[in-house]
Amino acid sequence: MTVRSEMLSRLEKQREGYSLERSLYTDPAYYQLDLENIYYREWLFVGHECELGAPGSYFSVPIGEYAILVMRQEDGSIRAMHNSCRHRGSRVCVEPKGKVEKRLVCPYHQWTYHLDGRLATARQMGKTVDNSQLGLKPVHCESLAGYIFVCLAQEAPDFAPFRAHVEPYLSPHKLRDAKIAFQSTIIEKGNWKLVWENNRECYHCAVNHPELCRTYPEKPTATGVQGVNNDPEMMANWQRWESAGLPSQFRMAESGQFRTSRLPLLGSSVSYTMDGTAAVRKPLCPEVTEPAIGSLLLFHYPSTWNHILGDHAVTFRVLPVGPTQTQVTTKWLVHKDAVEGVDYDVKRLTEVWLATNSQDLSIVEGNQIGINSPAYEPGPYSVEHEGGVMQFVDWYRRSITPRLG
Amino acid sequence: MTVRSEMLSRLEKQREGYSLERSLYTDPAYYQLDLENIYYREWLFVGHECELGAPGSYFSVPIGEYAILVMRQEDGSIRAMHNSCRHRGSRVCVEPKGKVEKRLVCPYHQWTYHLDGRLATARQMGKTVDNSQLGLKPVHCESLAGYIFVCLAQEAPDFAPFRAHVEPYLSPHKLRDAKIAFQSTIIEKGNWKLVWENNRECYHCAVNHPELCRTYPEKPTATGVQGVNNDPEMMANWQRWESAGLPSQFRMAESGQFRTSRLPLLGSSVSYTMDGTAAVRKPLCPEVTEPAIGSLLLFHYPSTWNHILGDHAVTFRVLPVGPTQTQVTTKWLVHKDAVEGVDYDVKRLTEVWLATNSQDLSIVEGNQIGINSPAYEPGPYSVEHEGGVMQFVDWYRRSITPRLG
Amino acid sequence: MTVRSEMLSRLEKQREGYSLERSLYTDPAYYQLDLENIYYREWLFVGHECELGAPGSYFSVPIGEYAILVMRQEDGSIRAMHNSCRHRGSRVCVEPKGKVEKRLVCPYHQWTYHLDGRLATARQMGKTVDNSQLGLKPVHCESLAGYIFVCLAQEAPDFAPFRAHVEPYLSPHKLRDAKIAFQSTIIEKGNWKLVWENNRECYHCAVNHPELCRTYPEKPTATGVQGVNNDPEMMANWQRWESAGLPSQFRMAESGQFRTSRLPLLGSSVSYTMDGTAAVRKPLCPEVTEPAIGSLLLFHYPSTWNHILGDHAVTFRVLPVGPTQTQVTTKWLVHKDAVEGVDYDVKRLTEVWLATNSQDLSIVEGNQIGINSPAYEPGPYSVEHEGGVMQFVDWYRRSITPRLG
Repeated sequence: MTVRSEMLSRLEKQREGYSLERSLYTDPAYYQLDLENIYYREWLFVGHECELGAPGSYFSVPIGEYAILVMRQEDGSIRAMHNSCRHRGSRVCVEPKGKVEKRLVCPYHQWTYHLDGRLATARQMGKTVDNSQLGLKPVHCESLAGYIFVCLAQEAPDFAPFRAHVEPYLSPHKLRDAKIAFQSTIIEKGNWKLVWENNRECYHCAVNHPELCRTYPEKPTATGVQGVNNDPEMMANWQRWESAGLPSQFRMAESGQFRTSRLPLLGSSVSYTMDGTAAVRKPLCPEVTEPAIGSLLLFHYPSTWNHILGDHAVTFRVLPVGPTQTQVTTKWLVHKDAVEGVDYDVKRLTEVWLATNSQDLSIVEGNQIGINSPAYEPGPYSVEHEGGVMQFVDWYRRSITPRLG
Repeated sequence: MTVRSEMLSRLEKQREGYSLERSLYTDPAYYQLDLENIYYREWLFVGHECELGAPGSYFSVPIGEYAILVMRQEDGSIRAMHNSCRHRGSRVCVEPKGKVEKRLVCPYHQWTYHLDGRLATARQMGKTVDNSQLGLKPVHCESLAGYIFVCLAQEAPDFAPFRAHVEPYLSPHKLRDAKIAFQSTIIEKGNWKLVWENNRECYHCAVNHPELCRTYPEKPTATGVQGVNNDPEMMANWQRWESAGLPSQFRMAESGQFRTSRLPLLGSSVSYTMDGTAAVRKPLCPEVTEPAIGSLLLFHYPSTWNHILGDHAVTFRVLPVGPTQTQVTTKWLVHKDAVEGVDYDVKRLTEVWLATNSQDLSIVEGNQIGINSPAYEPGPYSVEHEGGVMQFVDWYRRSITPRLG
Repeated sequence: MTVRSEMLSRLEKQREGYSLERSLYTDPAYYQLDLENIYYREWLFVGHECELGAPGSYFSVPIGEYAILVMRQEDGSIRAMHNSCRHRGSRVCVEPKGKVEKRLVCPYHQWTYHLDGRLATARQMGKTVDNSQLGLKPVHCESLAGYIFVCLAQEAPDFAPFRAHVEPYLSPHKLRDAKIAFQSTIIEKGNWKLVWENNRECYHCAVNHPELCRTYPEKPTATGVQGVNNDPEMMANWQRWESAGLPSQFRMAESGQFRTSRLPLLGSSVSYTMDGTAAVRKPLCPEVTEPAIGSLLLFHYPSTWNHILGDHAVTFRVLPVGPTQTQVTTKWLVHKDAVEGVDYDVKRLTEVWLATNSQDLSIVEGNQIGINSPAYEPGPYSVEHEGGVMQFVDWYRRSITPRLG
């Protein structure tokens, strides 16, 4: 029996409404298959357009075993490419983020590439090489309302449905005009699916996240996937916001891969701060005049969840770095003209989610430790509270199963 | 050929009286089979009853991939269970030792369990779960004269013969009335079998353990397995001690898994101190009035060896943490009413065995390093000095062979 | 398909003039086959004769999983043996270098060995062991003009052709009369073959090695393998040096495993210093009166490259320590009577190659990182500049292929 068929049979044996088998959270071979069949196949959020300034600005992102570059082009567009020289494979850009002048230059033998990856000069190679065949290998790349997505697959899934669904929700917030006020990167010692399972329910929030629960409603009809369309308060809010030009209602892709929904915060809260008041004096988008617009939620499996408020946005990027290690990068976006110390205070802006991330890290790590035991046995999800988790696990199983077959 | 049959054939090829083949000390796959067939099957010493106070007191122990909890019950008895919540598998108790109030509460979603592991409340799960099916999974647990043993196997080996043999030896020392005066945990970078082989001979003592050799006799008839019943000095001591109500003579289980024997210390020594005088003013058991009772030796494969003196006891717990890493925990027990600084001085109490442990760590690590070389070839054990090592290796082979078949 | 045949088929698919497939630089199983079929089969440079003083002086070297001792004998000769006691396998000599008195004594049970490895006494083992069968296992060892080579294979390849070729080149420099003025050991996080590929071309030098390029000619006819015999300047130099008794012309072994060549330095430079003047006032060999003798280059795959100048020599030892980790030890040799602070200054002596090593470390690590990406694809070597790399890769493929078959 091959590793693939072994993994398939474990997926098939899963009991409906129960967590996954231990090996799917621990086994290095199954992790490799997760990489190859999920992370190397799907569109992944990697960063924001506002992180790339003038042409030649770039950042690099490790995705499993790959290392990619995302680069601003001469014409202002954005491209992604593999960070591996076509001569002898050296990493071309060394820094996690930076700016090149006109050309990328490999530090090893100084082969140079155009910003779009085409080989410009293969120094002293004479006429022996065909430059047109030796560009930095391209990676599919799309920009969407300030978000940059890439896909490592040879043939990327159709991006259009995601764009059509999500762009109307995101566009009013003008995240292309934002800047990163702060960012944090942590490694959670847990399988990437545990990071997601933890994100997709608020059953654990009341006791674990006191700071977040000051403003964020933990009730499943607000954050979950079930019953959300039967909550009259939600419906009323959505109607009001949509009239003001802000698409808001809960909408899930048919594939289950992504979802948008705008959520009212608790009481009169307008932001994720300790007292619920705005963290930033300048709104993300001046055209949005509605005072309390709650939080626009967007997730897209397997790489990102997001909270977009009136005064700022918090975005999350999830990348696996090992069978039981996951990198979570959080960015706080504010209007590009907001001035630190004047319009916002970084501590106040970030304290709720820094605390929440830290709490989630402990939770995920404790979850992994318990699952590492051979005595672990899949347990029942709460139908009331963990519909989102079940939805994630279901998406995962439906996505990977045919690819393993 | 499977890994199991490969390991079997290596075990079968072993030359009588020679150390094991290299791979049995180094190979990660064979280490996994050691865990599954030895550590996950046999009774293991995990700690002392006196470490658990009032009901709700617990300590946790990692055993290979497992994590278990040992908990004092309402009725004063002791139970062991797996530290993995039946909801989504989270670790329930986070600290290595602590005390819960009435219930164990999972930190993730606050499911609660009775002290005996039964599920008390599955918070907000409605009527969808059957509490009776979702208790923390039990682990076999036995108490014996102050020692706590657990067994991870579905069906544990019969504990009765061990109890019948060992209880009479241990009981007079009243270790239930003791306390832990000091403990140390070290990781020796060597396979667990090398830790044992080193323990089961004193051929290495004279040069390596100057502190211990001040009081501990290194002669094989004292510490070994051969000839011990022909030593007139030993016989005389045993007779004297047994008349005083202290079972003392050398006795080995038929299976070879455990042995008891009381050993006279050198000269007029009564304790493992630099000058041989008592380290603790208050004896472990006031009823024992014999002035020099030597050291009661007990080993039980694969997890513990012990030295019980008149004034204190030193107990050792051996748990593998990797193919070439072994955790050794040493505890010094004194009478519970002995007062530190008055009745005993911690430095004086511990210096001999802390030094000895540190010396053994260097020895075991040097042994592992040499065996890592493909040039290593099993060498001959000394018949005179290494009978105990041969006895251990023999027990190991006889125990694991049928389980691999 | 076995690992061996898998590796074979990857080697066979290699495109002529292109770098190797990714897995040959990354896969732990192929690395193991590299060890077994290259490092455990070939002669390896381990150190210099001048590092061993009086009889009993030794140094130890880890070679893959092996640990060997190189020891000066009573008669002044040098022997190598495995550092693993024949009793229970313990490492015998603990220090990386030292001196024993008369006998090697195993720290575990004090078995003693003669300097040549024969078992002297098996303490308290009685007549049960045959000392003649239990010596420290020998390792093939040869000395050549101050260099010590060992071979771990059961049957070593013939050393004679190497000696016949190289001794005439090395002997005039009298490295047996030298001493180690300084040494450095670094770990480069790259596969050993990348360390070699980097060494075998100077295409990367101009930009990466400003210090070295002050004195070292980067042109391929100087450092490469092609066209070297057509360079009139080279020919003239060789003729002059050979007339002065210094074998100098480029000469490559038929097998491709080793090569000697004497190279003129740039301009009037005589040494690898920042200004090209000598770093040591006392020449390595007083009989060499020629003022500018360039640098004698010697490589021997897979373990050493060397630069022997008039005033000092720089020698390199390359030992793999993992699939993507390689240890590089550099030694600076000066005449044994040269006095530090008087005849040479260590900083001045070492600064060029310490900088160069550090630059090469960055290069090799960047190369490995880029190759780790599944997007890496073998690229074309420069025919002009990377002939030496092609020659190395060719030697590697020709050497390992029949051994895998």
